[in-house]
Amino acid sequence: MQNNPLIQQQLEAWIQENKGHAILGTTAQYIPALGNVDPSLLGICMVDEDGHYYCAGDTDKEFTLQSISKALTFIALSCHYGLEFVLERVDVEPTGEAFNSIIPFEIHRPNKPFNPFINAGAITVSALLPGPTSQKKYEYLLSFLESLVGHPLEMDQEVYDSEWKTSHRNRALAYYLKEANFLEIEVEEALDIYISQCSIKISVKDLALIGLIIAYDGYNPITKVKHFSDEIAQVAKVLMVTCGMYNSSGNFAAHVGIPAKSGVSGGILAAVPPKLHSQTYEFRAGAGIGVYGPAIDATGNSAAGTMMLRQISKEWDLSIF
Amino acid sequence: MQNNPLIQQQLEAWIQENKGHAILGTTAQYIPALGNVDPSLLGICMVDEDGHYYCAGDTDKEFTLQSISKALTFIALSCHYGLEFVLERVDVEPTGEAFNSIIPFEIHRPNKPFNPFINAGAITVSALLPGPTSQKKYEYLLSFLESLVGHPLEMDQEVYDSEWKTSHRNRALAYYLKEANFLEIEVEEALDIYISQCSIKISVKDLALIGLIIAYDGYNPITKVKHFSDEIAQVAKVLMVTCGMYNSSGNFAAHVGIPAKSGVSGGILAAVPPKLHSQTYEFRAGAGIGVYGPAIDATGNSAAGTMMLRQISKEWDLSIF
Amino acid sequence: MQNNPLIQQQLEAWIQENKGHAILGTTAQYIPALGNVDPSLLGICMVDEDGHYYCAGDTDKEFTLQSISKALTFIALSCHYGLEFVLERVDVEPTGEAFNSIIPFEIHRPNKPFNPFINAGAITVSALLPGPTSQKKYEYLLSFLESLVGHPLEMDQEVYDSEWKTSHRNRALAYYLKEANFLEIEVEEALDIYISQCSIKISVKDLALIGLIIAYDGYNPITKVKHFSDEIAQVAKVLMVTCGMYNSSGNFAAHVGIPAKSGVSGGILAAVPPKLHSQTYEFRAGAGIGVYGPAIDATGNSAAGTMMLRQISKEWDLSIF
Amino acid sequence: MQNNPLIQQQLEAWIQENKGHAILGTTAQYIPALGNVDPSLLGICMVDEDGHYYCAGDTDKEFTLQSISKALTFIALSCHYGLEFVLERVDVEPTGEAFNSIIPFEIHRPNKPFNPFINAGAITVSALLPGPTSQKKYEYLLSFLESLVGHPLEMDQEVYDSEWKTSHRNRALAYYLKEANFLEIEVEEALDIYISQCSIKISVKDLALIGLIIAYDGYNPITKVKHFSDEIAQVAKVLMVTCGMYNSSGNFAAHVGIPAKSGVSGGILAAVPPKLHSQTYEFRAGAGIGVYGPAIDATGNSAAGTMMLRQISKEWDLSIF
Repeated sequence: MQNNPLIQQQLEAWIQENKGHAILGTTAQYIPALGNVDPSLLGICMVDEDGHYYCAGDTDKEFTLQSISKALTFIALSCHYGLEFVLERVDVEPTGEAFNSIIPFEIHRPNKPFNPFINAGAITVSALLPGPTSQKKYEYLLSFLESLVGHPLEMDQEVYDSEWKTSHRNRALAYYLKEANFLEIEVEEALDIYISQCSIKISVKDLALIGLIIAYDGYNPITKVKHFSDEIAQVAKVLMVTCGMYNSSGNFAAHVGIPAKSGVSGGILAAVPPKLHSQTYEFRAGAGIGVYGPAIDATGNSAAGTMMLRQISKEWDLSIF
Repeated sequence: MQNNPLIQQQLEAWIQENKGHAILGTTAQYIPALGNVDPSLLGICMVDEDGHYYCAGDTDKEFTLQSISKALTFIALSCHYGLEFVLERVDVEPTGEAFNSIIPFEIHRPNKPFNPFINAGAITVSALLPGPTSQKKYEYLLSFLESLVGHPLEMDQEVYDSEWKTSHRNRALAYYLKEANFLEIEVEEALDIYISQCSIKISVKDLALIGLIIAYDGYNPITKVKHFSDEIAQVAKVLMVTCGMYNSSGNFAAHVGIPAKSGVSGGILAAVPPKLHSQTYEFRAGAGIGVYGPAIDATGNSAAGTMMLRQISKEWDLSIF
Repeated sequence: MQNNPLIQQQLEAWIQENKGHAILGTTAQYIPALGNVDPSLLGICMVDEDGHYYCAGDTDKEFTLQSISKALTFIALSCHYGLEFVLERVDVEPTGEAFNSIIPFEIHRPNKPFNPFINAGAITVSALLPGPTSQKKYEYLLSFLESLVGHPLEMDQEVYDSEWKTSHRNRALAYYLKEANFLEIEVEEALDIYISQCSIKISVKDLALIGLIIAYDGYNPITKVKHFSDEIAQVAKVLMVTCGMYNSSGNFAAHVGIPAKSGVSGGILAAVPPKLHSQTYEFRAGAGIGVYGPAIDATGNSAAGTMMLRQISKEWDLSIF
Repeated sequence: MQNNPLIQQQLEAWIQENKGHAILGTTAQYIPALGNVDPSLLGICMVDEDGHYYCAGDTDKEFTLQSISKALTFIALSCHYGLEFVLERVDVEPTGEAFNSIIPFEIHRPNKPFNPFINAGAITVSALLPGPTSQKKYEYLLSFLESLVGHPLEMDQEVYDSEWKTSHRNRALAYYLKEANFLEIEVEEALDIYISQCSIKISVKDLALIGLIIAYDGYNPITKVKHFSDEIAQVAKVLMVTCGMYNSSGNFAAHVGIPAKSGVSGGILAAVPPKLHSQTYEFRAGAGIGVYGPAIDATGNSAAGTMMLRQISKEWDLSIF
């Protein structure tokens, strides 16, 4: 079967239509290595269950995972220790607080962090990755991700260095977690893993494939490999719907309705589950989507990327709701 | 087509299996008229797109809507003024705070209430219902609900009186909303509507039908009547998934995965959308579910009802995730 | 002994010097009856232990007690039931929250309100005044105040009406107190007393006399009457120092150092204890001060009045620190 | 003039009477080197303006300054840069939050820390001490303290090491301060100074002398040396009254009324200003008091020491209120 040229044309048209929304955001200024990127970039890649890739816009540029890694670390850890182990240590409840707030964690102490997508939960999860050192833990994650995308991945050392030096707030949070007995390893080690995972370089094509695997409940329909259990994929999708887009997760669910996880680099990982009763024929059997648009809005999500996904979901009836 | 006796038997078996979980909760003690109910009751009703009803357990007992009404008022208001009007006045973001907390609202001022399912948002929505007086507003809602269920509904005056006298916290919240200019009408009027809607008597059969209509995006597949738009139904389902089960909405989504709204009376309204790729044949074309189990857990949800829905969703693969 | 003309001249000069600071504030806009007052007014009255009164500026204009009443209700209640009774029901700890915040109360629940000078504590105290009805409770307070100032006092009905209609935030707070079981009487009754006490009309001369009595530990050195115990006066002075000037109490203590209580009407009650080792001779044996300057700053204190007290305290070495 | 034997006898009697209150507290368990101290110790030293020392109980044991150092760093910094410089960087408002909370600081951002006695303010102040390195800054402070007490002081290296390893919460706070641009130096340097100052060893005799100097507005009446300005001493006393005893400062002011600063080591520094109109003759011309009782209560203050000071203040009429 061949690629559908209409889908390709449509995506290219939507890239043009939505490029302008980049002016509603700016690149993440608090991480110097991210702040210097061209804010007008916009790229998308979609892949279906037969392995057809549809890429449009600025798809050559690699970027770092940032918070997208939170979804992947959650999955990797659940794969190793089982979902029950992870859910004993971090909850799956959404919170109205900003992603990096210290407040909610303190108030609800001595409970566990609200969910693995706020920084308190994400650092807790990263520190639990298997391995005796932060390097080994990081390598475990990297190897898990490489098994998903099927090729080697590497870290953006400049972004790592930039974040290592400036992440005072994450250090504050991690020391707070240490004080509250949530971290078994040293704070500096936990930050090393966390910042390392945030600094992994990725492409929209890779994100699209990962999104497809999540949409197919851990199964890669192209390679026929099962990477993780249905249960893990389902909880990951729940988290993506309820907490995946920072403090506009509810609005994203209402207007887009696709499980997704964004990062301040401007990347978005989206998983479109099969929807046999869809009102259109495009991607009825599901898809994975990778988006990159480095100008992020006030809530931390790609400004143009979010608008484009809204249009795509509406036109092709991709919402799970 | 006839009812499927296997489904009926299965539901009756699950009622027996889950009845015991009632001891994990107690009836709502802060509303005297609710506190005196037999906590061991448990009933369920499911209805499919052909109008087959499957009822098991204690299904004769009527109960009051309580917070379930929040979902219905949101839909009724959106029907009248349009979704855009409503979303300008109340957000759709989940919050980690307790449903009746005054804190989050103050902190995020002067924004709108987080969502229509926390009390601040619910009172705001109720006060906006069409009509010049609280009585007219209430009648508008009642008439909307009667059009959904197809028969007259009435208020439980004893519950209304009980709540009117003891709802100091809702009065506090409503005066706070008034102070913050969110309420155009008088506080006592807003509370009258709000407590009235909470006191409407309902049965699990009615809830099941309403759930079916929401699952079918506002369309009643039995009567072939379209009650409200796809867009309204979709946002309602998003809210049910992200905020429908108070502060355990995330866990309910992870373990049950069915859009639902609960009330402290022990009722649960659940909407099972069609899922043509389901791993089982039961309710592939969707369903509505009404549950009643008055012993509620620490988060305010029916203890036995939640456990039973978890089992049903798992066995019949009803999760949307 | 006669009045000291130099003191009189000095006060008149300071009134002129400080009048201009009124532009740093505005009259309380959220209470219409207060908002319409001429913001440029400034008056002061000081009285010494021999009954010499020194009045300068706009001293004819009466104004309402507002939060100044909180100090007096605390004293009146302690007189009737004893200090221990009162301190069991309200704490004496300062708080960094705004005077009318709902937050701190909720967080520290189920403790008692932080202190009687935040609204939660003040309403709690007012509701405890002796008497079977709000009218009787108010009359008890009024009669106590009249015994201090030696003449009848009356309420400003226009201010009362204005506050009764607009005090949504106080109603929110009072319903919250009711919910938390801090109020034994009905909310509307508690508000009636509280707003009544806030609406009592007073002059700077009266305030000066009350300040003198507090400075003299409950004893009126002019009439030789002991109105309340040393212990009550001392706790009142502690509260005035730590919480008397809303959220700038610490700064007022650091720069003025005189126990004082302000109100949003622009009045300030100040009690200058005897200071035999003072570096000047003025008011070595203590004094009472009443100030009126209706333009209030962002923290709720008379802008010009605060500046004038700072100058007076510095020049005449009146700080207790 | 000779020591008054009646005062000596009285103090020894009060030590015996109050020793038992130690059971109301425990030694600070979160700092291992403090947790292992004998909790039943209780010692006091008072010194008057003629240099008479009255010491009773366990006065040989040295202990570390801990939070008492916050008052001294504030004075030392104000001496060097002037009060205005310091007050621009840290406020002097009390707060109801716990001394080491991260919450209030975040909420009130971008304001300055509430006061120099909460950890956020204290670390800010310490980091500002003159000197290019943390070592030089610490030496500046040490040398200032040595000039007050008149002999060399040293650090308790075991306590320093113990706190350095376990102060996750202070690290969290300091990184938070860094993020908020309150710290110009590196976090680890700021913590080095802060933990160093907390670890300085002191005796009740030294504390008594420092208390006397503060009571005399920076002047040592025994050596006739003026160490710091009246203004600095007065603000220090205001802080001691409003925030000196953690979250029971208000109660301490109400029941004791002496400016004081406590530390979790169980030490208390108290400054009794002259009170010529006192109802007793003891210490009319003021005094300094050092107390040591390592069993601390829930608010962090020496349990027996606080009770003893309450008795002393009442019997000898030492309250400034």
